[in-house]
Amino acid sequence: MSFYLKEIETVNFRNHEAINVSFHPRLNFIVGPNASGKTSLLDAIYYLSFTKGFMGATDQENIRTQTDFFLVKGNYFRNDSDETVSCGLKKDGKKQFMRNGKEYARFFEHIGSFPLVIVSPYDQGLINGPSEERRKYADSVISQIDRPYLETVLSYAKILKQRNALLKNMAENGSNDKDMLSVYNTQLAKHGNHIYKSRNNFVQAFLPFFNEIYARLSGKSEPVSISYISRLHENIFGDLLEANTQRDMLAGTTTSGPHRDELLFTINGLPAKYAGSQGQQKTFLLSLRLAQYAYIRQTIGLPPLLLLDDIFDKLDDQRVANLLEEVLDHNYGQIFITHTNLTMLTWVLGNLKQDYSVIKLKNGLLDEQR
Amino acid sequence: MSFYLKEIETVNFRNHEAINVSFHPRLNFIVGPNASGKTSLLDAIYYLSFTKGFMGATDQENIRTQTDFFLVKGNYFRNDSDETVSCGLKKDGKKQFMRNGKEYARFFEHIGSFPLVIVSPYDQGLINGPSEERRKYADSVISQIDRPYLETVLSYAKILKQRNALLKNMAENGSNDKDMLSVYNTQLAKHGNHIYKSRNNFVQAFLPFFNEIYARLSGKSEPVSISYISRLHENIFGDLLEANTQRDMLAGTTTSGPHRDELLFTINGLPAKYAGSQGQQKTFLLSLRLAQYAYIRQTIGLPPLLLLDDIFDKLDDQRVANLLEEVLDHNYGQIFITHTNLTMLTWVLGNLKQDYSVIKLKNGLLDEQR
Repeated sequence: MSFYLKEIETVNFRNHEAINVSFHPRLNFIVGPNASGKTSLLDAIYYLSFTKGFMGATDQENIRTQTDFFLVKGNYFRNDSDETVSCGLKKDGKKQFMRNGKEYARFFEHIGSFPLVIVSPYDQGLINGPSEERRKYADSVISQIDRPYLETVLSYAKILKQRNALLKNMAENGSNDKDMLSVYNTQLAKHGNHIYKSRNNFVQAFLPFFNEIYARLSGKSEPVSISYISRLHENIFGDLLEANTQRDMLAGTTTSGPHRDELLFTINGLPAKYAGSQGQQKTFLLSLRLAQYAYIRQTIGLPPLLLLDDIFDKLDDQRVANLLEEVLDHNYGQIFITHTNLTMLTWVLGNLKQDYSVIKLKNGLLDEQR
Repeated sequence: MSFYLKEIETVNFRNHEAINVSFHPRLNFIVGPNASGKTSLLDAIYYLSFTKGFMGATDQENIRTQTDFFLVKGNYFRNDSDETVSCGLKKDGKKQFMRNGKEYARFFEHIGSFPLVIVSPYDQGLINGPSEERRKYADSVISQIDRPYLETVLSYAKILKQRNALLKNMAENGSNDKDMLSVYNTQLAKHGNHIYKSRNNFVQAFLPFFNEIYARLSGKSEPVSISYISRLHENIFGDLLEANTQRDMLAGTTTSGPHRDELLFTINGLPAKYAGSQGQQKTFLLSLRLAQYAYIRQTIGLPPLLLLDDIFDKLDDQRVANLLEEVLDHNYGQIFITHTNLTMLTWVLGNLKQDYSVIKLKNGLLDEQR
């Protein structure tokens, strides 16, 4: 199965004035000095898969300064046919997201159709951040292969918000709307159980990919694991909600449920967050992303695009070699690698036995392509 | 380094009338029908290492019915010299525990001197029981190689009990003995930090042994892990005690500290308790015990005695073969294996290329030895 991005066009996207570039089906190096638009180009590619960026900016913030719209458009090749995806936004306007010229009713219907995995410095919170980041990680990977799951997560969040508002109201006004609470409990339990089961299945299926890749990248120097921690392992969610009603009313929020679960990352049996060295944590992150890649590829039978943003600076020579060997020799699809370090790049390209493109950027414009 | 039990003598111990048996330095099969005294013999051996039995009976309950004392005495060989250990108890009397004819002031001083690891059906609670069992497991393994740790655990338990009594008293009488509480907090924090650090080090050092043995026994069919979960990863214990004073007073007990830690056992990223099959759980247990063996042997440089109680019934043929290969080929010391299944035993012995003893028991007496 073949899947890749043939070319992309951006206008006024972030710091791009206008870029129109075609890609190699396999290997693309995106080079240029700081602020030349490398990461923005990856962000544009990411937009076309996720209907939003990966850098935490709002859609409006992605319109280039002193202009009043942005446009990103990509031409893909999938199996035997071409597809286009485009995203346009006017200042203070509504985002328009289209596949093959047809607008989506709801953006989330697009998620998973153009699979993509990115490894970027923005990942660090996955290890060091609060448990919410790790839940989101699991949910996002599952969503890419199981769209109904994404709907369930969205529904759960909505009902949770409503239930919390009710609880807060009950706490503040001393009111006691038990019927409404009971309705929310039923809905929350239904969606919550679905989330719990999906995450259970995900962790079981995902862990072997992760362990294998971590071992390859690190040379298997230490045992690592991912554990799913949930009170639903030992409780029925509906019962928990009932039992905790008093506590929830006092707290003004829902104190139990899959929104409190943890995906525990360990190195040597201790939380990676506290126990891992910098190098171990980076290898852990990289393994999470590449395992995600392998997991999605196997599940949907299509190789996702792989975006590697500024990762060489973070790894020592041995791990760079391991990483290159990993992505070049293990059946990956189209890859995009950003780079500032020309010495390193020369070294990398000198050793490459395959064909590739180099895309040079400068001040948000395409400088040279070869 | 050589270490083994040369012979043992028991009188009125459990269902033994009187047994006097010598052992093979390497491999001993203890056979006989149900209630012939096989497990009691293992328990006697266990007594000499731990000053108590492994089956949960009180010392007094181990005196044979209608008699008024028991005696267990063992002769060991360690490196180049002989040593004796004996334990005697009179009905309603005080237990007398002696090494080389000299009585111990405190029993715990003996722990770890005659290292021993047992695998028995009584282990099941380690997977399925409450977190207390897993904390005790870690503490007992550490104690066998680090006697000061055992003292710390005992001191911690004592102060915890006193603090809880004070909290209960404060709750009931509305009193507020802040000075005393502050004294307890300081002591508890000191011992608690020691416990936390020792467990941290233990999990890190132990996990590679465990993973390696699990892989050998199971053929590496699934990822397993052990994770140490503690609030002390992210909090200073003294601060936690201070911060939770109000909560502790309301609860009448100490709600934070290493006595609440968890040693999480996972199979495929999910708690072994809920996710593992029967076979996986048994392999997990066996691996815990054999890893404990390897860990102790490496740390103290002496091969512990290994007691395998009734384990063949629980494993399929392939895993029995893996287990035998494991204990016969990997540098284990003296081994005791109980057995009721004579067909299986014949099969096992027929394939053995090494020398061994067979000890037949009948109604609590030695029936035959060859």
